[in-house]
Amino acid sequence: MSTKHQLLIHLKEGKGIWVSGEFLARKMAISRTAVWKHIRTLREEGYVIESSQKKGYLLRQSSDLLLENEIREGLNTSVFGKRGIHYFRQTDSTNNRAKLFASEGAPEGTLVVAEEQTRGRGRRGRQWFSPPGEGIYTSIILRPSISPDEAPKLTLMASVAVAESLLAMTSLAITIKWPNDVLINGRKIAGILTEISTEMDRIDYVVIGVGINVTTPRKSLPPDIEDTATSVFMETGNPFPRIALLRAYLEWLESYYEIFRTKGFEPVMKRWKSLAGIIGRHISVDLIDRVRTGEVLDVDKDGFLILREQDGTIERIISGDVTLLHK
Amino acid sequence: MSTKHQLLIHLKEGKGIWVSGEFLARKMAISRTAVWKHIRTLREEGYVIESSQKKGYLLRQSSDLLLENEIREGLNTSVFGKRGIHYFRQTDSTNNRAKLFASEGAPEGTLVVAEEQTRGRGRRGRQWFSPPGEGIYTSIILRPSISPDEAPKLTLMASVAVAESLLAMTSLAITIKWPNDVLINGRKIAGILTEISTEMDRIDYVVIGVGINVTTPRKSLPPDIEDTATSVFMETGNPFPRIALLRAYLEWLESYYEIFRTKGFEPVMKRWKSLAGIIGRHISVDLIDRVRTGEVLDVDKDGFLILREQDGTIERIISGDVTLLHK
Repeated sequence: MSTKHQLLIHLKEGKGIWVSGEFLARKMAISRTAVWKHIRTLREEGYVIESSQKKGYLLRQSSDLLLENEIREGLNTSVFGKRGIHYFRQTDSTNNRAKLFASEGAPEGTLVVAEEQTRGRGRRGRQWFSPPGEGIYTSIILRPSISPDEAPKLTLMASVAVAESLLAMTSLAITIKWPNDVLINGRKIAGILTEISTEMDRIDYVVIGVGINVTTPRKSLPPDIEDTATSVFMETGNPFPRIALLRAYLEWLESYYEIFRTKGFEPVMKRWKSLAGIIGRHISVDLIDRVRTGEVLDVDKDGFLILREQDGTIERIISGDVTLLHK
Repeated sequence: MSTKHQLLIHLKEGKGIWVSGEFLARKMAISRTAVWKHIRTLREEGYVIESSQKKGYLLRQSSDLLLENEIREGLNTSVFGKRGIHYFRQTDSTNNRAKLFASEGAPEGTLVVAEEQTRGRGRRGRQWFSPPGEGIYTSIILRPSISPDEAPKLTLMASVAVAESLLAMTSLAITIKWPNDVLINGRKIAGILTEISTEMDRIDYVVIGVGINVTTPRKSLPPDIEDTATSVFMETGNPFPRIALLRAYLEWLESYYEIFRTKGFEPVMKRWKSLAGIIGRHISVDLIDRVRTGEVLDVDKDGFLILREQDGTIERIISGDVTLLHK
C-alpha cells in the first residue's frame, strides 16, 4: 500500500474529525512536508480535505473519481476487480485497453475503468457518448470455458447485472432491450459491448464493456441522442455515487457469472426474461444485411431471438437493432 | 524506395555481371564509401555479394531471408502483401503481431513474416516448432464482411491455398486434414491457426497464421513431433526456396478469397473436398470436452464436419482433433 493510500486511510478513520499533521507524520514515519505533499495529491484526485494550521487535516468528502482504492473499498467480490484495476483519467475506449491487456495475458477479472472515453464505442462501430465524470465506463476481462457460439449469453448476463445494480440502488423501472441495452422508460441508460477473441472452437478471452449514464444532465446530451438517452440523474433528479453503482455492478456480474458456470445459463436466462418483456411483442430488427419484421416468439436457451415473420417463417437471430412496433 | 534497395536492383539488373562501385555511386549520387556501407548491410541480410578492387561488385546469390523487397518482387497479387509487410528476424508469434497491428487498424492484406518464432502457436494453445530460417511463419489480416459463424470457412480456404502452393511447386502427394492441417504421406507439413476478433454479429478482423516446414532436416525435429511432422526438404531431399513458396501461397490465398467473396464458398469447398479425402472415413474426433467416434458423412457448406456416430446420432462439429481409424 502506498504512503498516500495509508494517509488516506488515517483520514477516513478520523470520520469527520481533525487529524493533526504531526500525528500523521509520526504514524507513517515521514516528514510533515511529505504529509502536505500527499494531501495536495489527494486533493488533485478529488478528495475534499480541509486544512488548518492549528487543527491539522479533515476529510470532508471522498473523491468521486473511480479510483482503484475507492473501488476496492468494500467491494464484495472474490475475483472481479481483485486481479488488477487499470484506471484512466482519459482513454480512447476501455474495451480497447482491456483487449490489449488481455492479449498480454491479463487474467480473468481484470478491470479497466476510465473517467472519460475519447472514442467510446457501441455495437457496430457506433459511438458511445462518454463525457468526463458523468458515467461509468468500464470493461472486464473474462476467460470462460465455453464455446464461441455461447458468447452471446455473456452479453445477456451483463445486461442482467447492470439492470440488477440499478434496481438495487434506485426505484426506477428498468427494462432490458435485446440484446444489449438497458432502458428506463424506453430511454437508453446503459449499453454493453461484448468483444471476443477466439479460435474456431476455443475462446481466448471475452471483454465485456459497459457504459452507464449516471450524473449526465439532459443539457449535456448531444442532439442525436437527446430523445433516446437518459441518465440516473435525469430520471431521479438526485446526484448519485458512481462508485457505489460500479461496485454493485461488479458484485452482480460476478454472482451471475458464478451461477452461469455452476448451474448453467437457464437461471440467468429466466431472470433476463423477467426483465426484458420482449416476448410476444411485434418488432422490426435491423440485421447487418437485411431487416426482419415479426413477432418475438422467444429468446432461446442460447440467447438467440426467435422471430416469426408475417409469412410464418421462423428466424433465429444472434444480434441486431430492435425497434418495438406498436401493434 | 531506399537507397539500399535501389542499389540491390542495380546489382540484380547486372545478372551475374560485375558492376563497378563508381557506376553505382554515380547512379545513385552517393559516395563510394556509402556504396560500400550498403553492400555490407545487404551481406548482413544474407545476400552473397563478391567484391573486387578492380571489377566492383557481383551479386552471386539473393538472400534467402523473407525480406519485404524479396517478397514483393514478382508477387502477383493486388492486395495481399501489398498493404504493408512487417518483417521480423525473430518474434514471439506472427499471429500475436498481426492481432496487434489489426487492433491498431491495419488494413486487409497486411502481412507479418518472421524468420523465427519464439512462441509459435498452434490450435488450442499448442506450440508450433519454428526454428530460424527453416520454415515459413506468416500471418495475414483479413476483414471479411461475413458473420462470425462463417469464419471456419476461412481456415478451410487457407488450407486449400497452402495445398495448392505446395502442389504447384512440388510433385508431392498433398492432402488436407480437417480442419486445419496439410499433410504429406500422413505427416504434418503445415498448420493453420485462425484467430478472430468479433462482436456478436460482426467480425472486426481475422488473422490467418500459417506455419510451413520447408527446409527443416529430420534431425532438427524435436522428439515429440519426429514421427508426425515432415518438411519439403525431408520429402524431396532438395533445398527449396522459401520465398517462392510464400509468394505462391499469397497468390493462391488471394485467388480463393476472391472466389469466396464473389462466387460464395461452394467452389472453395469443392476443391477442399477433392484434397481432403476424409469423407466416408471412420475417425475419432477429440473435442475440447469430449471425444466422438464415427463415420464422416460430409463436410457441409459451412465447413462443419458431419459425423454419424455408431448409435446413429448425427453430430455437426466446428473444429476438433481428428484421428483416422483403420476400419
